[in-house]
Amino acid sequence: MDNTMWTRIPRRISFGLCLILSTSLPSSAQQRAPRMTGFSAQGAATQHALEQQYDSLLNKEHLASWMQRMTAQPQHVGSPHGKANAEFMVDRFREWGYEASLVEYHVLVPMPEQRELHMLEPTPFTAHLEEPALESDATSSVREGRLPPYNAYSADGDVTAELVYVNQGLPHDYEVLQQHGIDVQGKIVIARYGGSWRGLKPKLAAEHGAVGCILYSDPRDDGYFQGDVYPEGPYRMGYGTQRGSVLDMPQHPGDPLTPGYGATPDAERLPLAEAKGIMPIPVLPIGYADAAPLLEALQGPVAPPAWRGALPLTYHIGPGPARVRLHVRFSWDLVPAYNVIAVMKGAELPDEWVIRGNHRDGWVFGAADPISGMVAVMEEARAVGVLAAKGLRPRRTIVYAGWDAEEPGLLGSTEWVEHHADELRGKAVIYINSDGNGRGFLRAGGSHTLERLVNEVAASVTDPQTGVSVAERLRAQRIVSGRREPQDTGLLRISPLGSGSDYSPFLQHLTIASLNIGFGGENGGGSYHSAFDSYDHYTRFQDPGFLYGEALAQVAGRLTLRMANAEVLPMVVGDWLFHVEKYVREVEELASDMRAATERHNSLLASGAWTLASDPRRTFVPPDPKDAVPHLNFSPLKNSLFVLQESAVAFDKAMKAAGTDLEPVVRDGLNAILRDLERSMSRAEGLPERPWYRHYIYAPGLLTGYGVKTLPGVREAIEARQWMAAEEQIQVAAEVLHHVSRQLSQATAAVSGQ
Amino acid sequence: MDNTMWTRIPRRISFGLCLILSTSLPSSAQQRAPRMTGFSAQGAATQHALEQQYDSLLNKEHLASWMQRMTAQPQHVGSPHGKANAEFMVDRFREWGYEASLVEYHVLVPMPEQRELHMLEPTPFTAHLEEPALESDATSSVREGRLPPYNAYSADGDVTAELVYVNQGLPHDYEVLQQHGIDVQGKIVIARYGGSWRGLKPKLAAEHGAVGCILYSDPRDDGYFQGDVYPEGPYRMGYGTQRGSVLDMPQHPGDPLTPGYGATPDAERLPLAEAKGIMPIPVLPIGYADAAPLLEALQGPVAPPAWRGALPLTYHIGPGPARVRLHVRFSWDLVPAYNVIAVMKGAELPDEWVIRGNHRDGWVFGAADPISGMVAVMEEARAVGVLAAKGLRPRRTIVYAGWDAEEPGLLGSTEWVEHHADELRGKAVIYINSDGNGRGFLRAGGSHTLERLVNEVAASVTDPQTGVSVAERLRAQRIVSGRREPQDTGLLRISPLGSGSDYSPFLQHLTIASLNIGFGGENGGGSYHSAFDSYDHYTRFQDPGFLYGEALAQVAGRLTLRMANAEVLPMVVGDWLFHVEKYVREVEELASDMRAATERHNSLLASGAWTLASDPRRTFVPPDPKDAVPHLNFSPLKNSLFVLQESAVAFDKAMKAAGTDLEPVVRDGLNAILRDLERSMSRAEGLPERPWYRHYIYAPGLLTGYGVKTLPGVREAIEARQWMAAEEQIQVAAEVLHHVSRQLSQATAAVSGQ
Repeated sequence: MDNTMWTRIPRRISFGLCLILSTSLPSSAQQRAPRMTGFSAQGAATQHALEQQYDSLLNKEHLASWMQRMTAQPQHVGSPHGKANAEFMVDRFREWGYEASLVEYHVLVPMPEQRELHMLEPTPFTAHLEEPALESDATSSVREGRLPPYNAYSADGDVTAELVYVNQGLPHDYEVLQQHGIDVQGKIVIARYGGSWRGLKPKLAAEHGAVGCILYSDPRDDGYFQGDVYPEGPYRMGYGTQRGSVLDMPQHPGDPLTPGYGATPDAERLPLAEAKGIMPIPVLPIGYADAAPLLEALQGPVAPPAWRGALPLTYHIGPGPARVRLHVRFSWDLVPAYNVIAVMKGAELPDEWVIRGNHRDGWVFGAADPISGMVAVMEEARAVGVLAAKGLRPRRTIVYAGWDAEEPGLLGSTEWVEHHADELRGKAVIYINSDGNGRGFLRAGGSHTLERLVNEVAASVTDPQTGVSVAERLRAQRIVSGRREPQDTGLLRISPLGSGSDYSPFLQHLTIASLNIGFGGENGGGSYHSAFDSYDHYTRFQDPGFLYGEALAQVAGRLTLRMANAEVLPMVVGDWLFHVEKYVREVEELASDMRAATERHNSLLASGAWTLASDPRRTFVPPDPKDAVPHLNFSPLKNSLFVLQESAVAFDKAMKAAGTDLEPVVRDGLNAILRDLERSMSRAEGLPERPWYRHYIYAPGLLTGYGVKTLPGVREAIEARQWMAAEEQIQVAAEVLHHVSRQLSQATAAVSGQ
Repeated sequence: MDNTMWTRIPRRISFGLCLILSTSLPSSAQQRAPRMTGFSAQGAATQHALEQQYDSLLNKEHLASWMQRMTAQPQHVGSPHGKANAEFMVDRFREWGYEASLVEYHVLVPMPEQRELHMLEPTPFTAHLEEPALESDATSSVREGRLPPYNAYSADGDVTAELVYVNQGLPHDYEVLQQHGIDVQGKIVIARYGGSWRGLKPKLAAEHGAVGCILYSDPRDDGYFQGDVYPEGPYRMGYGTQRGSVLDMPQHPGDPLTPGYGATPDAERLPLAEAKGIMPIPVLPIGYADAAPLLEALQGPVAPPAWRGALPLTYHIGPGPARVRLHVRFSWDLVPAYNVIAVMKGAELPDEWVIRGNHRDGWVFGAADPISGMVAVMEEARAVGVLAAKGLRPRRTIVYAGWDAEEPGLLGSTEWVEHHADELRGKAVIYINSDGNGRGFLRAGGSHTLERLVNEVAASVTDPQTGVSVAERLRAQRIVSGRREPQDTGLLRISPLGSGSDYSPFLQHLTIASLNIGFGGENGGGSYHSAFDSYDHYTRFQDPGFLYGEALAQVAGRLTLRMANAEVLPMVVGDWLFHVEKYVREVEELASDMRAATERHNSLLASGAWTLASDPRRTFVPPDPKDAVPHLNFSPLKNSLFVLQESAVAFDKAMKAAGTDLEPVVRDGLNAILRDLERSMSRAEGLPERPWYRHYIYAPGLLTGYGVKTLPGVREAIEARQWMAAEEQIQVAAEVLHHVSRQLSQATAAVSGQ
């Protein structure tokens, strides 16, 4: 076991599951077999050989032809081509030896019926709101059945008001507006995409009294400032528009009419008026070609430097004189969503499930998002099927999933998870997600007990461009970006997960250990959620030759097969603990940083310097003083961390003493505890004010949307300056860590009882 | 004496010249008189009363009418209106009781005869190269006799080549080009203004083999990104163009044909071919309206994010396919430059000179630069004249100067200084410069022995917009920007001076203590060196009502009059020492930071991470390894600093013991030493490779142009990785500090010998 990762942990403990016994294998097999947590040396050699076979079965041609077929027509939830794709997939999975079926839910997905945006003053202008056909992009001329740019779960509305530019529309932006003496009450706001999940922008605008919200992609963030625009380059052209959901997902994802349970065709449903999470004001996304005349027409104060984009104009805040009319109307019908579920029953442990999924619905043609990931899943499943047909069936059951209706709000996966919650709680050992793919570097996030598994897999897959392992290439990137020292040979850290894809119901609602993986960073962006996310765009710019599609199948296939075949589930508590220790330090630092910032804020205010330093010719409203940050009692959390470290040491000791040849009954007991370990990080009542989210280590931020908040109960209470709640949440988090300690002690007992 | 400023100095010493004796004055005078270094209590009260009278004489109407008159026609060096302005000034100074004259030098100033810029491929385009007439700007239609946009001291040339975008054309930019595998050999480069003095851009381009250089103002730095463009707002419009000199001023300013001596009409001159500092390649400045088609036509790699401006295009580096022809030709004639020199002989110390100047030549109409400063000097001189006529003549001589030919390269001031070097060395006690003015905050730089004087003056002048002192308002700005803590009541630090205005020959060649002052920060930029730097622009945007013109006359008038009337010259060695201690720390840190950066650079290179992390589809040439940074011996410098601290403590002690009523002979001896103190910071042989610059504490950077380098010998040797030279320069700097210590010891002896 590599010890370099422990530099920040007080004691040198190594309670990983090191089952490789150096004396149990002939030396040739030893040399061949790479380190493989969860496997004995013999098991590792067998698994290694299996993976070599697996690799040899992969065929990039399949990815290309499936993508071309599946992206030939619009394929959003409810579309004929979407259903045809689902049926095509079911047929393939059956061919490959799976029990496969379409699993249907009926979900509320609003579809646009009216979209109009006009500037009435000072210069009449009607926004174009359409993406043009381009000669070099075959599907761009396919108009029938495609969803035009819109934001799903916007309110219906026809509003006319003065326009205000609110930058990214985040909480801090409203503080800046206040300092300029500008109020959005009764106004329509225009916000640029970026800085947060899009749904927070209209939500905050509505909370501040705005009557409508326009979202646009500024060319600085997503357009010609970044690189050549489509079709010369991959970046967003002037009318390329980012569709997307504005459902209030930080509250919960999934069908708004069936909160917390499956939207089966016969389920009882809330009346629409009682549904939560639907935006109270109309919202519409536009491209920068449509945004430019609106922004150009604004006067009022010049926007602060950080608010300015790359349009050739001086960014003003307004309000007005631009006056706009925003008119949107949607159908509010139930739409059938078809998940594809394909099961390869495990040869030895059929009731332990390894679930591997990607969504299959796109906003329009959806080549990169999501089909590039979906076809890698399919090729993976095909190869696993071939191996099974040869008699190399996995020990555990593998479930492949192609989710529908992810784009409007993770509906397909969430309904399935809610529908099968009890079964999943008992059986799921991991959920492995992807959501599209591109050229570049491995990106992995998820439960930190799986960090070592991800590292071992990444070290065993070759980067198709450079010939080194994908781990080696990622390490190089982190070294160059200054995130890592060249001499550091420790684990590559994986990111904690927030939300934004189908892992969320698994990880955060059922607290099943999860991973999210994909490649990227060298695929120029710019097609995201537009009609130009096409086969042509993808094969020219995102992953020509599907080299990284194959690499994804190699990485995800290994993850899936190792989880399916491992003797002991390859979860390493020490790696997780390393991160939890960091999170505890972070929340403590957060409080003291906020204390210092508050003191400075109040002292600045008291000194009068803000007003004196401001330009008397401009409006300046000094901010309000802030309440002092008390000293919070973090000791419960730190004491529980101490107990956790003790439990981990004891477990490690017991594992070492037990050696590697665990009795089957001991091993099964241990595996059951490991499977449930992530579950022990949750509370049945969920997080404060959002009970659907039950994971107490990872959650999407209430005010960042997709962005993760670790130790969310504590962190968000501090950020919200709710000091009493913070003290309570420190207690709750401490109890959660105690709960994990107890699980570990049980595991220790199970192993020692051998 | 305020002790808060000493927090970083090891011992509590206070060797300022605190001559205010609390027992020597009736308490009413005590209350009235502010703290005034260099004056006894009685003297301070008298001076305070004088300044009240002075203030009451100032009249903003004069500033407005003089500016309107002086900027009505183009008034560059050699222009008829420029000469008329000089004559107008001489007449006024005489009216006001001065001995005033035109002092004429004949200097080489190239004037443009041909300016052409064409793109030949891929799309023919001819640059406009003219600034349009605007209805709302009266002088913009005055075309006769105006200098079109050009760079003075560009080579003549007619070159055709592929174009390369080099960002700001700084040393680091060429490293980035090298990493992209791009060479400018035989190419024409286009560089945006900013990041350094403009003359370095073509100089570096030529050193890298480029055959021509185009400079342009990117709207991100200087145009619509910053705010509304002229005439709607103050910022640069598309054809507004920054003229400017590209004479190699970091070598030396002044007439290239008479290096080091005055360019009197009958002086011996170098032949043009032997003149140094003239740019070897043709250079031309253009506006962003002309730059856009050129940049749009470039292909090749996309420029790195930091290189991208605010034009609505993707910034590419090239080279080509844009191919351009640059054709410029200049007259190379001698031009008469007329300095206005006006003398008010001192009543008591006629051979001690306080010199106060501003240049009077502009590139076109020159309202902000320089007339806004010049008219403040004139109003100051008028009021001083009125006081003198009332019998309140200054003790020391005051010399007012209106310099000609500053814009092409500080020619008027440099020639006068070189011409009168011996006299000035003996007589000058200070040079106080301004170079334009605007609305906002006091900006002061200069010799740090004068820091306390500047603070005392700034505390006694009222900011016209807020009613607090200009010191208070500046303090507020520094608090808000985080440069200062609200509770810090210590001195406002003034900046060290590099170059870029007429203080340079005084401060850096003769090492006369100097200050440079002005207001600004709330006057939108954008007219700099363009034909739109007009009376209309200035009075609308820069300082409507000339409120800050009056404030400048108040600040500069106090500085001038206090220097002229002080009993003991108000120079505080401790304040200067505070900065020198900081500079010594900085150069030591510079070496250790470079050592760490070099180690990281080489270790990154050795790890191969750079290559592995780079996109294989793009050219990437890894940089060369760097030579290790040795541990330099800083002890001579630190030991000399220690001695200096000791001398300062002894001087302070002696001053305290002497009390305030110094015998005239002692006082005169002390004043002579103080006057020469700045001289003791120099070396006759000048800085390495640029002997004209003799100051060893402050110099313009060889590779930053205007930007200052403190302890320049040491700092620039380290930056250039010349380790032997750095060791030598540490010795030399140590000797300079020892020299200052000896001066101080003499002063101590002078005071103690009383």
